[in-house]
Amino acid sequence: MPVTELFDIAGEAEQINLQLDKAGRLRHLLTLQGLDRQHLTDLLDDSEQYLSEGGKPVVRTDSLAGRTVANLFFEPSTRTRASFDLAAQRLGADVLNLDVNTSSRKKGESILDTIYTLQAMQIDVMVVRDAQTGVPAHIARHVNDFVSIINAGESDVSHPTQGLLDLLTIRRHKGRFDNLTVAIVGDIAHSRVARSASEGLATMGVRELRLISPESLAPDPGTVPPQAKIMHGLDEGVRGADVIMALRIQHERITNLDGIPGVDEYFASYGVTSERMKLAAPGAIVMHPGPMNRGIEIESKLADSESSVIKEQVRNGVAVRMAVLTAVIRSMSPK
Amino acid sequence: MPVTELFDIAGEAEQINLQLDKAGRLRHLLTLQGLDRQHLTDLLDDSEQYLSEGGKPVVRTDSLAGRTVANLFFEPSTRTRASFDLAAQRLGADVLNLDVNTSSRKKGESILDTIYTLQAMQIDVMVVRDAQTGVPAHIARHVNDFVSIINAGESDVSHPTQGLLDLLTIRRHKGRFDNLTVAIVGDIAHSRVARSASEGLATMGVRELRLISPESLAPDPGTVPPQAKIMHGLDEGVRGADVIMALRIQHERITNLDGIPGVDEYFASYGVTSERMKLAAPGAIVMHPGPMNRGIEIESKLADSESSVIKEQVRNGVAVRMAVLTAVIRSMSPK
Amino acid sequence: MPVTELFDIAGEAEQINLQLDKAGRLRHLLTLQGLDRQHLTDLLDDSEQYLSEGGKPVVRTDSLAGRTVANLFFEPSTRTRASFDLAAQRLGADVLNLDVNTSSRKKGESILDTIYTLQAMQIDVMVVRDAQTGVPAHIARHVNDFVSIINAGESDVSHPTQGLLDLLTIRRHKGRFDNLTVAIVGDIAHSRVARSASEGLATMGVRELRLISPESLAPDPGTVPPQAKIMHGLDEGVRGADVIMALRIQHERITNLDGIPGVDEYFASYGVTSERMKLAAPGAIVMHPGPMNRGIEIESKLADSESSVIKEQVRNGVAVRMAVLTAVIRSMSPK
Repeated sequence: MPVTELFDIAGEAEQINLQLDKAGRLRHLLTLQGLDRQHLTDLLDDSEQYLSEGGKPVVRTDSLAGRTVANLFFEPSTRTRASFDLAAQRLGADVLNLDVNTSSRKKGESILDTIYTLQAMQIDVMVVRDAQTGVPAHIARHVNDFVSIINAGESDVSHPTQGLLDLLTIRRHKGRFDNLTVAIVGDIAHSRVARSASEGLATMGVRELRLISPESLAPDPGTVPPQAKIMHGLDEGVRGADVIMALRIQHERITNLDGIPGVDEYFASYGVTSERMKLAAPGAIVMHPGPMNRGIEIESKLADSESSVIKEQVRNGVAVRMAVLTAVIRSMSPK
Repeated sequence: MPVTELFDIAGEAEQINLQLDKAGRLRHLLTLQGLDRQHLTDLLDDSEQYLSEGGKPVVRTDSLAGRTVANLFFEPSTRTRASFDLAAQRLGADVLNLDVNTSSRKKGESILDTIYTLQAMQIDVMVVRDAQTGVPAHIARHVNDFVSIINAGESDVSHPTQGLLDLLTIRRHKGRFDNLTVAIVGDIAHSRVARSASEGLATMGVRELRLISPESLAPDPGTVPPQAKIMHGLDEGVRGADVIMALRIQHERITNLDGIPGVDEYFASYGVTSERMKLAAPGAIVMHPGPMNRGIEIESKLADSESSVIKEQVRNGVAVRMAVLTAVIRSMSPK
Repeated sequence: MPVTELFDIAGEAEQINLQLDKAGRLRHLLTLQGLDRQHLTDLLDDSEQYLSEGGKPVVRTDSLAGRTVANLFFEPSTRTRASFDLAAQRLGADVLNLDVNTSSRKKGESILDTIYTLQAMQIDVMVVRDAQTGVPAHIARHVNDFVSIINAGESDVSHPTQGLLDLLTIRRHKGRFDNLTVAIVGDIAHSRVARSASEGLATMGVRELRLISPESLAPDPGTVPPQAKIMHGLDEGVRGADVIMALRIQHERITNLDGIPGVDEYFASYGVTSERMKLAAPGAIVMHPGPMNRGIEIESKLADSESSVIKEQVRNGVAVRMAVLTAVIRSMSPK
């Protein structure tokens, strides 16, 4: 059944209205679109308090004691589910992990009936991942005043907590955004990671945003921030960049690329390598959302080098999710 | 292997003996049969304290701190498993969710050896769902004095916590049972929900209990309370009823019904609709155990109407399970 | 891809170096090899404090509050996973259970990248089960100073917490090891249980260790402790033994045994039975790591008899795992 038969897709304006309450606080996190620089800065600032260095105890509080967070992953995930699970536990919340393989959705129950059921069980926050565009907003539109929705990955279009952790990682290394050139490399057309990072970076006022891909994986210009440059040559794209973000590519996409018959050719043309990093600005950092295909979109040696901040992205992801969970709960209080 | 080769099925009398201790307290919850009106009333009364209205904090205690509840679902479930998981967490218990796909049962270990293993790990309560008749009682018969079994769904025959949440929902809306006419509609023959609800309603002294289905889905008269009326016409069944409970029907059953070749015909004959509700008593409520097939056994609009108490059933389910967990643990104390 | 293409297998000496810190404390638990009698005795002594008798409350502490334990089972498991899950919860740790069916490993991510991801999420202890030899040591070699690895079952070669729980069970019944004859019976060649138990028993100075199997399931003599006797006749093997441990056998192995065409023949030749127990020393105990094939490697009646300590093994397993979790965390403190 096509998506449009299931539900109307919320437009940008509606999503923005949905995710902020009347006081302008974050009610749901559906997309980074429509969150202004102050919203993003507040979330990044809050995230900082949940960070600790390796070997120091993790930050653990009871601030969400008595609250329940449900991880509702209709699309499989290990790392994002684990990150939300830990974020919720470290805030003292009860956590419900729902096994999608045995979910009611298979039995033909509508998404909304599943959501109404969880709502009736007094779940406070539902963390939703879905392969279909529009599902998180569709859900947010229908829940009551005591439930928040967090988008944990939506089709090709949005992955806002990933965007936030990317911003946090960049800010911790570079301090500010307005003097930065950021290059995102790979399958831009199908990457919710690229979409959310682009939106966040544009809002934060990055100097230059380059989206680099083979022609057939270039984004629809209508889906990228106005200031983004769509590019096709990696050398040119990396030149002078302060931040290079390599995206995961699906093997099956490579075999369908014009002029790129296999992974070796892809790596030659679009692999981020130590050699290419010599073209970047001094002190440039390399990012990847994981899981990596080493030797395809990123050189293995580079991923483990001093320039790589990939592990920090993961650590920062837990902190960002703790901040987002806290923020959406706060917007619903006092109950 | 037929069930009878695996184990003897406990008769009604034995189940009753199994589930009450010498002081008459609930040791296990296997069936609503044999629980008298006082037992049921006590459980409903206890459940009330675990209810809170939407937006108010959930009731959360540490009364089961140090106890362990294992969810042992040999048959897949999302909502019932989630409900027990939350009930246990909100009482402060440790929770062990066992993945049936990788369970020892597949490796050929007997059910009892799995149970003895969990018992040796000092699990206090095992919540068991199984597609075979007799499994919960079989297990209860063999565990030691420090383990309680709760039936979370047993073949076509029993689903006692569902029965209790149905009673609680009806009592909260109607106050009493002795002046009520309750109509249960659908696949009565194969519904453990109908069986447990019927048993509970009979015990509570409901005035009239109507079981309405196509001829081929009518119950064996030996399995229903003596006062139940087996009926086949929905208009007649709904007329004057205070409570109408629609049951989920399996699509594959519909196609085998005499004279009902498809879902549209089923809906026409046995779908509970707003139109038919006009025949019911003023203020009648509509129930469904979920997950719903909207447009098959229940009209979608009706499910979302003021008459519908379907979401309350879900909420009440968590409270009822908190009360049952507390009751069976209490019967084992002081340790 | 053969294992050797994935990673080098750590030799015995390296594993020993890996698992002890400079102060000789347990950093990781990879194997019982290289742990001396004092190490083992300390772990058994610590385990005792986590034991309680049936009906007494379990021992539950908050000593690991704020710590996170991840169960990373690349090979399915019910009982071992449950045992570690409960052990961690009963110490107050946060627990992350990773679903291997949806793991990143399937997506082609290297094991180490999965581990680095969990490490970045500030997991303190990773409990790893894997079907390939060398995976736990490979991981331990690469994690940072703030992560401990516990081997929860490794191919055919190692299952150290099972070895420890076997030692604890024997010590609680027999008090000492130096006057004991222990017979391990079954598929010695493929049993990580037999390997770890043998290593532990040798270190504890057991008087006589007999490894009894059909010829084709006999161990490589290079893999057993020097004092072990490789035997093929069960009557002879059981004679005078104080402890008889039956191993689980895979059905598919039986059908490939020379001269043993089926399970009945296997039971006749290698089944541990009440009749054969008459040959053992007075007061001999029978053990099995579970899950049992009743009527194949062990007589059902014997498994339920007074001689059987199989359920105690399970209970002791939780206590041993609590002691091991505490020990490895202690070796990393103060952070």
